[in-house]
Amino acid sequence: MINYENIKEAKGRIDKYIYHTPLEKSIYLSNADTNIYLKLENQQKMRCAKIRGALSKITNLTKDEIEKGVVAISSGNHGAAVSYASNLLGVENATIYVPETTPNSKVEKIEYYGAKVVKIGKNYDEAHEMGLEEIKNNGGLFIDPCSDEVVIAGQGTIALEILEEEPNIDTILVPIGGGGIITGISIAAKAINPNIEIIGLQTAACPAMVASLKDEKFYEVYPTEDSICDALVGGVGEIPYKMAKKCIDDILVVEENHIAEAIKYLIMTEKIMAEPAGAIGIGAIRKNIDRFKGKNVAIVITGGNIDQGLMNEIIK
Amino acid sequence: MINYENIKEAKGRIDKYIYHTPLEKSIYLSNADTNIYLKLENQQKMRCAKIRGALSKITNLTKDEIEKGVVAISSGNHGAAVSYASNLLGVENATIYVPETTPNSKVEKIEYYGAKVVKIGKNYDEAHEMGLEEIKNNGGLFIDPCSDEVVIAGQGTIALEILEEEPNIDTILVPIGGGGIITGISIAAKAINPNIEIIGLQTAACPAMVASLKDEKFYEVYPTEDSICDALVGGVGEIPYKMAKKCIDDILVVEENHIAEAIKYLIMTEKIMAEPAGAIGIGAIRKNIDRFKGKNVAIVITGGNIDQGLMNEIIK
Repeated sequence: MINYENIKEAKGRIDKYIYHTPLEKSIYLSNADTNIYLKLENQQKMRCAKIRGALSKITNLTKDEIEKGVVAISSGNHGAAVSYASNLLGVENATIYVPETTPNSKVEKIEYYGAKVVKIGKNYDEAHEMGLEEIKNNGGLFIDPCSDEVVIAGQGTIALEILEEEPNIDTILVPIGGGGIITGISIAAKAINPNIEIIGLQTAACPAMVASLKDEKFYEVYPTEDSICDALVGGVGEIPYKMAKKCIDDILVVEENHIAEAIKYLIMTEKIMAEPAGAIGIGAIRKNIDRFKGKNVAIVITGGNIDQGLMNEIIK
Repeated sequence: MINYENIKEAKGRIDKYIYHTPLEKSIYLSNADTNIYLKLENQQKMRCAKIRGALSKITNLTKDEIEKGVVAISSGNHGAAVSYASNLLGVENATIYVPETTPNSKVEKIEYYGAKVVKIGKNYDEAHEMGLEEIKNNGGLFIDPCSDEVVIAGQGTIALEILEEEPNIDTILVPIGGGGIITGISIAAKAINPNIEIIGLQTAACPAMVASLKDEKFYEVYPTEDSICDALVGGVGEIPYKMAKKCIDDILVVEENHIAEAIKYLIMTEKIMAEPAGAIGIGAIRKNIDRFKGKNVAIVITGGNIDQGLMNEIIK
């Protein structure tokens, strides 16, 4: 199982390739009783926290693995992050499986850094299933964004930066998609301060981790309603599920319209661009500020790659 | 006159209070012949480059000056930066003069960090004149954003960061309002690489430095047409004017509609929020990309504090 040492080792491997993103106090969200800080991973390389996991994995490969190459299944931040990290670290053979419906702008961004893009399956679930089958047949090291110990250790470096900069942080809010980021952050944070509260955030359109914990069942896939949070829908990762009782103290479920309002609030008031999954913590805090009375809260803004069409709609 | 040593000293004083903002290669603006990098001062503390100048000045005060307090005249980034820096460095008596028309949101932001806001005059020019009169009568050290050697030395630290990170940069594009930022950047950059080209950027609504150089006249005030670039209108600073022939190799004048398009481009494609003065360099490069063939260009994005109403209009 992943531990604090793994996360410190990951930091040692990736530190020179990433930004130490700002941890900024929000003067608008804070009040006399509550300090709210934003960890701005929307300003990270590739505009997303996922790059930490991809770099952690690829800096940890053997020479042999580097030569054989890597594979990921993702049209979003993880796919682009694996392509970028592969290019940076001399992995010449990187393949990213994406659903056939993936827009050209996303394909081009992945290809820009050198990875080969293969379109497969009508949607993400199909792409995932068919991609795994391809990997089984063709080889290549599969980089799982949510359930790979080395990837999760990379995500955990976010907590090291938060608590180094503001040791008084007693609460961290983290979005849950597959659950990789919250797992890494929690392991590091609780090793430093066992009393810290780690609160997950899920969209009401797909509260898969809430259901997994309630039903005590590993929901690898989970049905979703319409959602603007493409990074937060679908099932949970196996490692995050297994570690959830130890890692996640509570989960706040946020309505889709409150997430959209949070994106607009961040743009208009804080001058911050966040993607829906990155903005969910702002939606949570604005609707639950009293719950955090007397606390020093860090909210992880996980990414800034918001879709153009959605951006237009939200501003209108 | 300001020299390279002054700028290195300013860096020594302010380095621990500021962010080393990213210098990011734009994969969308670069092409096979030209590398375009963005220096993201919109991600700086207070979302603006001006904080470097304010911090340079206030870290350089004597104990006596700190006790007497400081004064600035600005409802924009400089005013907020002086308030923030004063609070950070123990200047208890800071006064910011702003025009009577200044919106409450700006006043509240300045006051949040502890400075006293005094509304005076119907517009900026009147506020400036009446503010200077008040300072003469009431005392307090006036911090001029554009024509103070210590402030300009602070702005010059931007060039130190750019050339430390990418020593191959051969061209830097910098917005010109009063001219403080381009003067500081040029002195540092040309000390490191005498062949570097420093190109100023002005809005077509108020090309005051272009006119000053053409007419060989110091235009302390200058008429302006309607402009979205509140930080780039009005006359030039005295030191920037006097040093312009040595510091500024060329000036590109950018149409207002191209600046608006640049703001939208940055949001939609690069996922970057810039204020109009911060986006002007993108407008310039998109209309003049051939001029920079074979070059490694850094564009300084000076700030991110875009007005909400303007933001709404531009996205529509």
